[in-house]
Amino acid sequence: MIRITIWNEYEHERTIPAIAQVYPEGIHGALKSILSEEKDFEIRCATLEDEDQGLSEEILSNTDVLIWWSHARQDDVTDENVRKVVAHVHAGMGFIALHSAHFSKTFRALMGTPCTLNWRENDSEKLFCILPSHPIAQGVPQCIDLPHEELYGEPFFIPKPDDVIFLGWFAGGAVFRSGCTFTRGLGRIFYFQPGHEEYRNYDIPAVRRILKNAVRWAAPSVRLDSPPDNVRI
Amino acid sequence: MIRITIWNEYEHERTIPAIAQVYPEGIHGALKSILSEEKDFEIRCATLEDEDQGLSEEILSNTDVLIWWSHARQDDVTDENVRKVVAHVHAGMGFIALHSAHFSKTFRALMGTPCTLNWRENDSEKLFCILPSHPIAQGVPQCIDLPHEELYGEPFFIPKPDDVIFLGWFAGGAVFRSGCTFTRGLGRIFYFQPGHEEYRNYDIPAVRRILKNAVRWAAPSVRLDSPPDNVRI
Amino acid sequence: MIRITIWNEYEHERTIPAIAQVYPEGIHGALKSILSEEKDFEIRCATLEDEDQGLSEEILSNTDVLIWWSHARQDDVTDENVRKVVAHVHAGMGFIALHSAHFSKTFRALMGTPCTLNWRENDSEKLFCILPSHPIAQGVPQCIDLPHEELYGEPFFIPKPDDVIFLGWFAGGAVFRSGCTFTRGLGRIFYFQPGHEEYRNYDIPAVRRILKNAVRWAAPSVRLDSPPDNVRI
Amino acid sequence: MIRITIWNEYEHERTIPAIAQVYPEGIHGALKSILSEEKDFEIRCATLEDEDQGLSEEILSNTDVLIWWSHARQDDVTDENVRKVVAHVHAGMGFIALHSAHFSKTFRALMGTPCTLNWRENDSEKLFCILPSHPIAQGVPQCIDLPHEELYGEPFFIPKPDDVIFLGWFAGGAVFRSGCTFTRGLGRIFYFQPGHEEYRNYDIPAVRRILKNAVRWAAPSVRLDSPPDNVRI
Repeated sequence: MIRITIWNEYEHERTIPAIAQVYPEGIHGALKSILSEEKDFEIRCATLEDEDQGLSEEILSNTDVLIWWSHARQDDVTDENVRKVVAHVHAGMGFIALHSAHFSKTFRALMGTPCTLNWRENDSEKLFCILPSHPIAQGVPQCIDLPHEELYGEPFFIPKPDDVIFLGWFAGGAVFRSGCTFTRGLGRIFYFQPGHEEYRNYDIPAVRRILKNAVRWAAPSVRLDSPPDNVRI
Repeated sequence: MIRITIWNEYEHERTIPAIAQVYPEGIHGALKSILSEEKDFEIRCATLEDEDQGLSEEILSNTDVLIWWSHARQDDVTDENVRKVVAHVHAGMGFIALHSAHFSKTFRALMGTPCTLNWRENDSEKLFCILPSHPIAQGVPQCIDLPHEELYGEPFFIPKPDDVIFLGWFAGGAVFRSGCTFTRGLGRIFYFQPGHEEYRNYDIPAVRRILKNAVRWAAPSVRLDSPPDNVRI
Repeated sequence: MIRITIWNEYEHERTIPAIAQVYPEGIHGALKSILSEEKDFEIRCATLEDEDQGLSEEILSNTDVLIWWSHARQDDVTDENVRKVVAHVHAGMGFIALHSAHFSKTFRALMGTPCTLNWRENDSEKLFCILPSHPIAQGVPQCIDLPHEELYGEPFFIPKPDDVIFLGWFAGGAVFRSGCTFTRGLGRIFYFQPGHEEYRNYDIPAVRRILKNAVRWAAPSVRLDSPPDNVRI
Repeated sequence: MIRITIWNEYEHERTIPAIAQVYPEGIHGALKSILSEEKDFEIRCATLEDEDQGLSEEILSNTDVLIWWSHARQDDVTDENVRKVVAHVHAGMGFIALHSAHFSKTFRALMGTPCTLNWRENDSEKLFCILPSHPIAQGVPQCIDLPHEELYGEPFFIPKPDDVIFLGWFAGGAVFRSGCTFTRGLGRIFYFQPGHEEYRNYDIPAVRRILKNAVRWAAPSVRLDSPPDNVRI
C-alpha cells in the first residue's frame, strides 16, 4: 500500500460560491476520488483548519506521499509545520506540489529559490510531454489539451529540476515548466502546474494518469525516522 | 581575439531565388556582418563547396568557435569531416549549432540522440529567457518576438542539456527548448533554434546579442592539440 | 518478463588461461547466473564470435535491456552493428555498459564524448552510494568494499550524467563516477565501473543487487519500432 | 570592480590558541590577502560580532560576491539575517560557501536539503578536477594535493548541483563532491570543501586560483534591487 495524504488549504471552495460549485467536495475530495481508483493507494485528506493544521507528526510519519494544494492562505501555515514537512521529505516522504502550491512555504523551503512566475487568469493550455521515458509520463499522450487553465509563465525561479517532464504552452503567449521533479534529502518531489480552482482539470483522463504515476514515482524507496544528520566516522 | 569560423551549407541561398533575395550574402555573410561588430572577433567563413568542405585540419585547428548552419545537404558532409569536427570539440573548440543544424551529422554525433522534433513552416515565435543569470542571456530581454519563424516543437530528442536558457512559444501551438547548452569533452556547445532561411531573424537586436554572447561563452578556456585519451597512471 | 541480452566480447576468458580460470563460464555466464535469480528475467547471452556478432535485428528487437561487456576488441564491432544498437536504444531499449565498455563504440556513440579516463591495474575500491533514493540504489549499502579492482580515475570525459549514483574511491589515489545514468532518445542507460576480468566482483551480494536493480530501472516503459523521426505537424 | 565581502564567523581563531597561531589574522584575513592580489577586487571583511552580525542591508546591497566561513556558531546567525542573505542571492549576489559552511543556516536555506555529511578530523585530500572546461577550473591542475585536511565524506545531502567541478579523495577512505555550483534565483553559488581551520590550505597556489576564479564566476551579470516576485501579466 502507498499511504497518501492529500493536504488542501480548502479555502476557496468554502468561501467562494462559484468555486464551491466547481468543487463541492473540495479539491482534496476530487483528488481523493481520482486516486481511489488505484487499489493499492490508501488515502487520507487533511486541511488547514484541521487540528495541527492537518500536519501532525502522527499524520506525516504515516504518509508516504504528501500531495499539497494551497493558494490564498499560504502564509497561514506555521513555520513549525513547514519545518516538519520539510524534515519528513528529507527523511524520504514524497511530496507533490500542485498549481499555486509553487508559492507555498513548504515548496519554497524545499527549493531555496523565490519560486515566482508570471500569471494571468482565464487562458488555455497545451501540456507537452518532453521526456516520454520518465515513469510519470507512462501512458500519457504527447500533448494534453486543457481548454481552460490559468496562465503560468516563465521565468519560473526554481532550481534546475532533476527532470522537466512537461512543458506548458498557453494560448495567451507564455511557456512554463509545468511538470518538474526534484530530490531533497531522500525525498522525491514533483511539481505539477495544472489545477486552477475554477476548472476541473484533474478530471481529465491524461491528468489523472499523471497524478497516479506521480504518486507511485514519489513513494519512498528509503524512509528514515528522521532526516540524515552529520556523522563522525 | 576569438577566432570564429562560420560554416554554412550555403545551398538554399544559391539555388532558390526567393532565399537568395532574403540572404544575398548567404546566411554566413549575414552572421559575419553581425559578429564583425565585435572588435575582438576574428571571423572566417567556410561552406560545403569549399575545398575539404571547408573543414580542413588547418581551418579547424585555428578555430576557437565553430558556428554551423545546415539543412538540405546534411548528409553530404563526409563522415571523416564529422569525425574531425567532433574531435576538435572534444579538444576544446566551441560549437554553435543553428536552427536546422539540430539534424546535422556533427550535432547528432555530439549528442548521441536522434535530435528529432516536430515542425511546420510559416509560424511565429516568442522566445522566453528562463535562465537570465546565464552569460548567454546577458543583456537579453525576458521575451523576444520573432514575427516569422518556422515552428519547431517538442518532443526534441536531445540529451538533458547542461542548461536550457531559452524556451520557444509558437503561435501554432508548440513549445521548444530553443536555446540549450552542452559540454562534450572540453568543448562547449550551444544549440539555438531560430534562423529559418526565409526570414532575417539574426538581424533582430536581441538575437544579435545572443549570438555574440554565445561566441564568448563557447570560446575555449582549455584547448588541447587532440581529444583526451585514456592514460595509464 | 524483462528480456535481457548479455553481450560479452568473450575474448580474455577464451585466450588467457588465468582469466579462463576466473571466469570459466565467461563473464556473460557469471552475469547470467546472477540475473537468473530473478524469476521475471528472461536471459539470453550473445558474444562477438556469434553470427552477426550476436547483434542481429532479431536479437535486438527482442531485447528489453542489453548488458554490454567489452575490452580488447572494442573496434571489431562493426559500425553497422553500432548503428543498430544505438537505434534500438533510441527506440527505448535499455543499455547497461560495464567496466571497460566505457570505451566501446556503442557507449561512445551514445555519449558523444571521448569517454576516456585514467587507469592502473591492481588496486582496490570503495564504492559509495551518493544518491540512496535512486531505484538502482535500493537495498544497497552506503559503501561497498571491492578488495580487488582495476583503478579507474577522473577525469572521465562523459557528458553530465542524469544522475551519479555511485562514486568510486581507489586506494591508489583516484576517484571515479562509478555508477551513472543517461537518457538517449527513449532509452535508459546505466554505466557501472566495477568488473575487471581478473576478479569476480559481480558475485559480491551488493553488486548483484545493483545489477538487478539496474535491469529493472533500464527496462523500457515505452518501446517504439524505430527511433523517433522528424515529424511535420 | 567586483565588490567582495568575506564573512567569517571568527570564533576559533579568537578562542582557541592553536587556531589563533594558524590564522593570526583570522581566516577572513587570510582570504582577504589572497584575493587582494587581484587588482579589480574590492574587499571588505565582516564577522559575526560586528554590528548587525556584519550582515546589514548596507553591506549586502554593496556586495557582488559574499564569501562565507562558519562552523561553531552556525545557529547564532539570526533568522532575519539568513533571510536577508538569501534575498540578496535571489536578487543576483554571488555566494561562496567554504568548508563547514555546508551546515550554515544560509547555505541550507539556499539548498533546501539537510546538507549533512560524514566527517573525521586529521586526514589528507587529493582534489580532482572533473570538469576542466568550467571557468572555476581555469588554470587549475588535474589534481591538487592537500597533505592535511579534514575528511568530508559522501553521502552529502545536497540537491543535484548544476556542476560538480571537483571531487575529493581522502586517504582515510572517503570521496566528496568538493566543488559544486548551484543557481538560486539570479544568484550563482559555489560550495568549496577545503578550508579546515587547523591548516592553511587556502594558501596553496592552486586553491588560491580556484578562489579567485570562483569570485569572477559568481559575480552577478544581473542584479535586481529585490528578489523576483510573482507578476500579473
